[in-house]
Amino acid sequence: MIVTMQPAATLKEITGVIRVLESFGASPSISRDCGCTLITAATSKVPIDAQQVRSAGGVRDVHEDAHPFKRVSRDYHPEDSVIDARAARFGGGGFTVIAGPCAVENEEQIHTIAAHVAAHGAKGLRGGAFKPRTSPYAFQGMGVPGLRLLRDAARANKLAAVSEVMSIDQVADCVEHLDVLQVGARNMQNFDLLKEVGKTDKPVLLKRGPSSKIEELLLAAEYIVDAGNPRVVLCERGIRTYETATRNTLDITAVPVVKQLSHLPIIIDPSHAAGKREYVYALTLAALAVGADGVMVEVHPTPAKALSDGRQSLHFEEFERLMEDVRRQSEFRASVSV
Amino acid sequence: MIVTMQPAATLKEITGVIRVLESFGASPSISRDCGCTLITAATSKVPIDAQQVRSAGGVRDVHEDAHPFKRVSRDYHPEDSVIDARAARFGGGGFTVIAGPCAVENEEQIHTIAAHVAAHGAKGLRGGAFKPRTSPYAFQGMGVPGLRLLRDAARANKLAAVSEVMSIDQVADCVEHLDVLQVGARNMQNFDLLKEVGKTDKPVLLKRGPSSKIEELLLAAEYIVDAGNPRVVLCERGIRTYETATRNTLDITAVPVVKQLSHLPIIIDPSHAAGKREYVYALTLAALAVGADGVMVEVHPTPAKALSDGRQSLHFEEFERLMEDVRRQSEFRASVSV
Amino acid sequence: MIVTMQPAATLKEITGVIRVLESFGASPSISRDCGCTLITAATSKVPIDAQQVRSAGGVRDVHEDAHPFKRVSRDYHPEDSVIDARAARFGGGGFTVIAGPCAVENEEQIHTIAAHVAAHGAKGLRGGAFKPRTSPYAFQGMGVPGLRLLRDAARANKLAAVSEVMSIDQVADCVEHLDVLQVGARNMQNFDLLKEVGKTDKPVLLKRGPSSKIEELLLAAEYIVDAGNPRVVLCERGIRTYETATRNTLDITAVPVVKQLSHLPIIIDPSHAAGKREYVYALTLAALAVGADGVMVEVHPTPAKALSDGRQSLHFEEFERLMEDVRRQSEFRASVSV
Amino acid sequence: MIVTMQPAATLKEITGVIRVLESFGASPSISRDCGCTLITAATSKVPIDAQQVRSAGGVRDVHEDAHPFKRVSRDYHPEDSVIDARAARFGGGGFTVIAGPCAVENEEQIHTIAAHVAAHGAKGLRGGAFKPRTSPYAFQGMGVPGLRLLRDAARANKLAAVSEVMSIDQVADCVEHLDVLQVGARNMQNFDLLKEVGKTDKPVLLKRGPSSKIEELLLAAEYIVDAGNPRVVLCERGIRTYETATRNTLDITAVPVVKQLSHLPIIIDPSHAAGKREYVYALTLAALAVGADGVMVEVHPTPAKALSDGRQSLHFEEFERLMEDVRRQSEFRASVSV
Repeated sequence: MIVTMQPAATLKEITGVIRVLESFGASPSISRDCGCTLITAATSKVPIDAQQVRSAGGVRDVHEDAHPFKRVSRDYHPEDSVIDARAARFGGGGFTVIAGPCAVENEEQIHTIAAHVAAHGAKGLRGGAFKPRTSPYAFQGMGVPGLRLLRDAARANKLAAVSEVMSIDQVADCVEHLDVLQVGARNMQNFDLLKEVGKTDKPVLLKRGPSSKIEELLLAAEYIVDAGNPRVVLCERGIRTYETATRNTLDITAVPVVKQLSHLPIIIDPSHAAGKREYVYALTLAALAVGADGVMVEVHPTPAKALSDGRQSLHFEEFERLMEDVRRQSEFRASVSV
Repeated sequence: MIVTMQPAATLKEITGVIRVLESFGASPSISRDCGCTLITAATSKVPIDAQQVRSAGGVRDVHEDAHPFKRVSRDYHPEDSVIDARAARFGGGGFTVIAGPCAVENEEQIHTIAAHVAAHGAKGLRGGAFKPRTSPYAFQGMGVPGLRLLRDAARANKLAAVSEVMSIDQVADCVEHLDVLQVGARNMQNFDLLKEVGKTDKPVLLKRGPSSKIEELLLAAEYIVDAGNPRVVLCERGIRTYETATRNTLDITAVPVVKQLSHLPIIIDPSHAAGKREYVYALTLAALAVGADGVMVEVHPTPAKALSDGRQSLHFEEFERLMEDVRRQSEFRASVSV
Repeated sequence: MIVTMQPAATLKEITGVIRVLESFGASPSISRDCGCTLITAATSKVPIDAQQVRSAGGVRDVHEDAHPFKRVSRDYHPEDSVIDARAARFGGGGFTVIAGPCAVENEEQIHTIAAHVAAHGAKGLRGGAFKPRTSPYAFQGMGVPGLRLLRDAARANKLAAVSEVMSIDQVADCVEHLDVLQVGARNMQNFDLLKEVGKTDKPVLLKRGPSSKIEELLLAAEYIVDAGNPRVVLCERGIRTYETATRNTLDITAVPVVKQLSHLPIIIDPSHAAGKREYVYALTLAALAVGADGVMVEVHPTPAKALSDGRQSLHFEEFERLMEDVRRQSEFRASVSV
Repeated sequence: MIVTMQPAATLKEITGVIRVLESFGASPSISRDCGCTLITAATSKVPIDAQQVRSAGGVRDVHEDAHPFKRVSRDYHPEDSVIDARAARFGGGGFTVIAGPCAVENEEQIHTIAAHVAAHGAKGLRGGAFKPRTSPYAFQGMGVPGLRLLRDAARANKLAAVSEVMSIDQVADCVEHLDVLQVGARNMQNFDLLKEVGKTDKPVLLKRGPSSKIEELLLAAEYIVDAGNPRVVLCERGIRTYETATRNTLDITAVPVVKQLSHLPIIIDPSHAAGKREYVYALTLAALAVGADGVMVEVHPTPAKALSDGRQSLHFEEFERLMEDVRRQSEFRASVSV
């Protein structure tokens, strides 16, 4: 961090800034070169809160040259993290597919889907039991019984069970039944929830908020890791923009950006990003090509009858074709990357 | 709602759509005029989930002509709601100012500020005890002891105590100590929290999420009202855009839009919107002019030493000048609106 | 500007950066304090192109501490600019209203409107003759005959004639007939057009592009001023965001931001920002309160029959009421600011 | 289009709406089913201007069910358009690479680059001669001499010469020297320029504006096609969002969306989207995977010395590696799609 003091900054103000920097464990040094005093702090024990420095007296400008996260940073952990959840592996060069319905609706539905997606190569089974819905009048999910149905269907087909935990009081049930705890986009900055899942030993699938910067996604992951749980898988699922042709705008560049900044794996959710099933095929192949560690897609035997998000769910035969092409493409990539 | 079926829609598909509409309590009717079948549902008991209709077989297009909220809608409650929290009144034509520090830091700080803002006309005292912070390494607030300090300072100066509740397990403490429960922008779609504060009898100050549509803000309020608590005050605090000159982009038009759609009061938070204290004066006068029911502003005796958000906090003398001009302007408005 | 070199930067690379900075007329100096070489350039003859510096070998980071514009900056011209166009004055503390239809449609229409808006206090008459339309099939404007009708109606009512110039080949006709040349939002970065209106001696009303930063608006103004024409009036007309309740999102904070950074006057266009006439009244009063130098509003005798943008045009009686309240409010402000 | 009249709409108002619809060549019909009159217009010769209908008296709501463009729509031209410009072919299943520097700087530079990119499989040579720059103090390009250098370098290497035309007065020179006329993002809605390039017989590369919807991009293309030139290639180059990790946010989903709506080819510009060379490789492979018809990438022998945009230009060896992998991937795709 480089702090430029105002030309008229007093010695007391300069000392004040140094104190602030030292409170973060930094050893600042001073130079005078452009008519102002510059205070530089090259390293610190914990990330320096730029806003606090900016608020100090006599400060003209603050220039951050380091990212504000630490444990999720590639600087502190150069190798890719590899995170296993039963059959599903995230990171390490593979391309892992999580598939399933938006919501668990009943036993037959989830078992039928689980069998189908497992047969075609998926390694994780998704299905919402607690559903965050914009309207209080929309279907809110089956709750704990839904978690049980999901778990049984996953176990029967050797899949990792993946579902969203929406609040702290659901964490215990989710830990009991699930293999991966999903934190939804709307909860990406629900910091108490982040700390709570950070105390568990389950892999966490952390979805990017629809208006969150990549840096904020990594800081949210830092909350989980800092609380003791290093097994975080990130998920890009589209950000909110003015474009209305799609439900969200998939920020596919987030994949190489995250790969550069962090050691954590990152997957893509093309279903929520696009909001229309006809774009899911193309976006999944793009996710593979751009270097993502996997995708999470919605599949339903009869999307027209789905209780939520049917518009973006793949039919069984569409999923089958998608997985076939993902497999061929993955094999080709493996063959040439020797 | 008007559903346009595809030209080739079968009778079974048409019947399917009618069933879906009936499941929301609507009595649909059919017409054939543009080569396609149109199914119209003019009224329904609960708002119709357009996404579910859109997913039904044979549907070409769905046109929603009603807003998806109900209890917060001006259609169902034409008069303005007026919400009282001790000395603070929201709605009914006044302009109520809530002021205070970003965070409660210690007893002397909060008492000094409370005395100052009360002396100059504020009716509410804000001050964070639980602080949602993007980084896990930033100051996280004093917790329950901070709530107590805030309450005592508010009581001593006849102000309503306003502070943020971040999670369900904090609700009981907040209800005990506070006069207004604030739901922060990052939690606007934390639906379990909305339901929980909806079970209390305290006024709720609901801040708009930084990437939420006005309609979504009203749906979040609907969650609270639907859970039993009609005393919701909305707060526009800036949305996230590409502009970097300010912390957020204040969407001032949200005020007349909300006034048209809903009976709930709405205030503005110019401090978080702008992120810089020098714009707070102009934005507060604009809030008054545009018809807002009040503002919430940050004030600190020594912003340079504030533990958070000092950059956007007013100095005491700035707050004094602001309140003087708000008072004069309010009196003038009252005098001409006879 | 402060350039941080990489720890391993060679002497040749350091010299290379110094050369680049010198090419902008800067006299850089060097320091070594945080394990890296810092190169600082406090002043320069022309703004330094940060991107070019960033591309130089061995550079780790570039920190700009000055704004990239110069002639429009308040640093170089501390007093407010006051720009006169016949009866209309922009800057200097007044609040000037430009009113008129979206498009000039015929002689009777424009004369009727001109007489009405002049009678109620407008100082400028707007009306499009060349219309930029998103669709090639929408009404494209009357062209030069429309300019003549506008001019005659303006002259007859002592109003400044304001209309948009869309391309270089229209500049001569516009200079002949108009008092203010408007550069539309879609052309804000049509740099050849900016240079061309910069060669005229007519005031230019420069509208902010729907996705332009305030800094880019000021840089666009810099093009005009740098070409020789210092008489630029800025116009905030809403930016594009994800919010759909309004046509655009009015960035009202742009007014105090521009006032801080630049000496140029700035007005607001509430009609295009909101896209709905019912919000124009509230936004105009907010514009006055926030310190804008005026507004440009759309007025039409029969909005329902307007050839374009009727949805956002005020009826005559609405305009009359608005102007009455603007007048009273302006008088009150003048009375208290002594 | 379905127009819902207000319950109290008069016969005169209903007739008025019908007249408006008929003025677009539609044959409207009437129904009464939800307590209101519905007026439906299934087809029309030219797209109906919804805004004009919405402004008519007595209208409650307007529902557009058709896209407002026509000649560029896949409905009117189901097969993919294939557009040839010398060696470069856009559409028809291939993946065409245009490469070159941001700006033509001198003869040696452009010849060196042309030879390199041709040797590794590029079919088009890009290079700006007229440069739109945000700041008037940045390098503005070589002008017509730059066009000549570009043409000669392209001819010598059997490449199509591609460069931006910024204004109408440059069109003649550009037609003389270039094989593809590029319309830049900032000019996407410079309608006079669109009409002018629409009168030429050169392929036009139309870049999406940084805040334009896909529908607006297609309408801009409609201007060109409607003026007589059907040879339009679209280019997605990133849109402006709040994310700051990249220069723009590449909207990769625009590719399948455009493919669904239109018969025109679409390529991607990963260099401008990302703004950093290290992401160009991944984004190019994603473009290929998602079904784009090609890419346009920036290449420079010594990016650190480039007069503009060096930060996003590939080094020669990076381009070579990229083309090698594009070739292998394309061959694999061709082999499996039989």
